[in-house]
Amino acid sequence: MVYELHYWPGIQGRGEFVRLALEEAGADYRDVARLPPGQGGGERALAKRLGELDPPPFAPPVLVAGELVIAQTANILLFLGARHGLAPPEEAGRLWVNQVQLTVADLVGEAHDVHHPISAGLYYEDQTAAAAERALHFRQERLPKYLGYFEQLLGVGGGVNRGREDELCYADLSLFQAARGLQYAFPIAMERLGREAPRLLALADRIERRPRIAAYLASPRRIAFNQQGIFRHYPELDG
Amino acid sequence: MVYELHYWPGIQGRGEFVRLALEEAGADYRDVARLPPGQGGGERALAKRLGELDPPPFAPPVLVAGELVIAQTANILLFLGARHGLAPPEEAGRLWVNQVQLTVADLVGEAHDVHHPISAGLYYEDQTAAAAERALHFRQERLPKYLGYFEQLLGVGGGVNRGREDELCYADLSLFQAARGLQYAFPIAMERLGREAPRLLALADRIERRPRIAAYLASPRRIAFNQQGIFRHYPELDG
Repeated sequence: MVYELHYWPGIQGRGEFVRLALEEAGADYRDVARLPPGQGGGERALAKRLGELDPPPFAPPVLVAGELVIAQTANILLFLGARHGLAPPEEAGRLWVNQVQLTVADLVGEAHDVHHPISAGLYYEDQTAAAAERALHFRQERLPKYLGYFEQLLGVGGGVNRGREDELCYADLSLFQAARGLQYAFPIAMERLGREAPRLLALADRIERRPRIAAYLASPRRIAFNQQGIFRHYPELDG
Repeated sequence: MVYELHYWPGIQGRGEFVRLALEEAGADYRDVARLPPGQGGGERALAKRLGELDPPPFAPPVLVAGELVIAQTANILLFLGARHGLAPPEEAGRLWVNQVQLTVADLVGEAHDVHHPISAGLYYEDQTAAAAERALHFRQERLPKYLGYFEQLLGVGGGVNRGREDELCYADLSLFQAARGLQYAFPIAMERLGREAPRLLALADRIERRPRIAAYLASPRRIAFNQQGIFRHYPELDG
C-alpha cells in the first residue's frame, strides 16, 4: 500500500513530523501536494482534497492509509508507530511515547504563537509588538522549561524509550525536528540554553546520522526551514 | 483498582475532561489534590507529587493507574476509553475519537490564549490590549471554524461515533465540556454562533442528562466555572 500524505507543499510545518516517521520507516508514500499540478499537486488541489475526505479533517496533515483517513499529527504518528515498529508494542510504552509526542506538539504550538500571538489570520508584520513581548516570555520561561523537561526524560541513555534507548521511537524523531526548528528560529537563545540540554542535542545529532534520515535530509524531499513555517527566524524575536 | 487523578484543585481546566470520563465510566478514583491537606490535598502537595512521579509529566493532569503514570489529557482519555468502553475497540474508530479529542484540545488551547495571548505567567490584567485583539479574531474566525467543523462531524445522528451514535465515546463528553465552557466564557458570541451549531448543543444537552453525568454535575465534585480556569468570562472579550 502506498500512503498518501496531504500537507502544505511549501513548509515543513506539522507535516514534517509525519514525513520523518515515514522516511525512517522506509514507507512508500506520496507527498501529494508536492507533486506537479497535473498529478494532483499544489495548494488549491490540497484545499479541495481536504474538503472531500471522510471523515473530515479539521486541518492538515492528513494521512490516507487505504481505507483509513487520519488527521492530527500525534494521531497519525500513533498509527504509524504501531504499524512500523516506531513505538513499543505494549500499552505503557505506547502511552509514554504518545505523551512525549503531545508535549512536543504543545511546544510546537507555543513556538508558532511566538510570531503569531494575536491571530494566524494576520501577517507577522501586523502583530510585531505582541510578538516581541511573547518572544521574551517564551525565551525566558517556556523554552527553558521544555528543554529542561526533555533533558530530564531522556535520561542518561539518551532516548525517549527509557531503559532501552537502542529502540528508536517516533518521539525521538520529533525531538530532533523540534530541536533543529528551535535552533533555526532562536539561534542565540538556543546557543545559550542548549548548553543545559546536551542530551537533547546529542539525540538530534544521532537521529541526523541515521542512514534513512540522512538520505532524506540530503534529498529534495526535505523542504528547508523558511519564513512561512512554524519555526521562523525573526532576529528581533531571538536573544 | 482506585485511580489517582492529580490536577489543580480549584479549577475545571484540562482535568475536567478526565473527570467526566471517570464519572461516566463509574470508575473509582481519588481527585487527590482536592482531598483535605492531611490526606494529600492542596496545591503544594500536588506540585511535590508531580515532581516525584515516574515517568515525569510535563504538567497535570496526571492519572495514576496502578503501575501506569499517564499524562497529557488526550493520552489519559485514550487509555480510559479503551479500558472503560468509551471508545470503539477497532483501530479506525479509536483513531477517529482520538483525532476529535485532539481537535477539542486545540480549541481549548486557543480559548485559553484568548485571555493569555502573551504569557500564562502574567496576569490577564497585564495583557488586556493583546487579549482584546486576540478575542476579536477568535470570535470572528476561529470559533466559527471550530463550531462549523464539529457540526459537520457530528452528522445527523448527533454523536462522534458516526453511524452508531448510540455508542457514547469520550470525545462526546469533551464536546459537551467545550460547549459549556464556551457558553460560559462567550455568552453573547455563543448565543449568536450557537444557532449554527444545533447538533453540538443538542449533544451537550443529551450528555448533561446522562444519569452519571447529571449526578456528577449536581455533586460537590464538580467545580464551577470560574475566573482561574481555561474558560473565563471577561465581558470585554465577548461580543
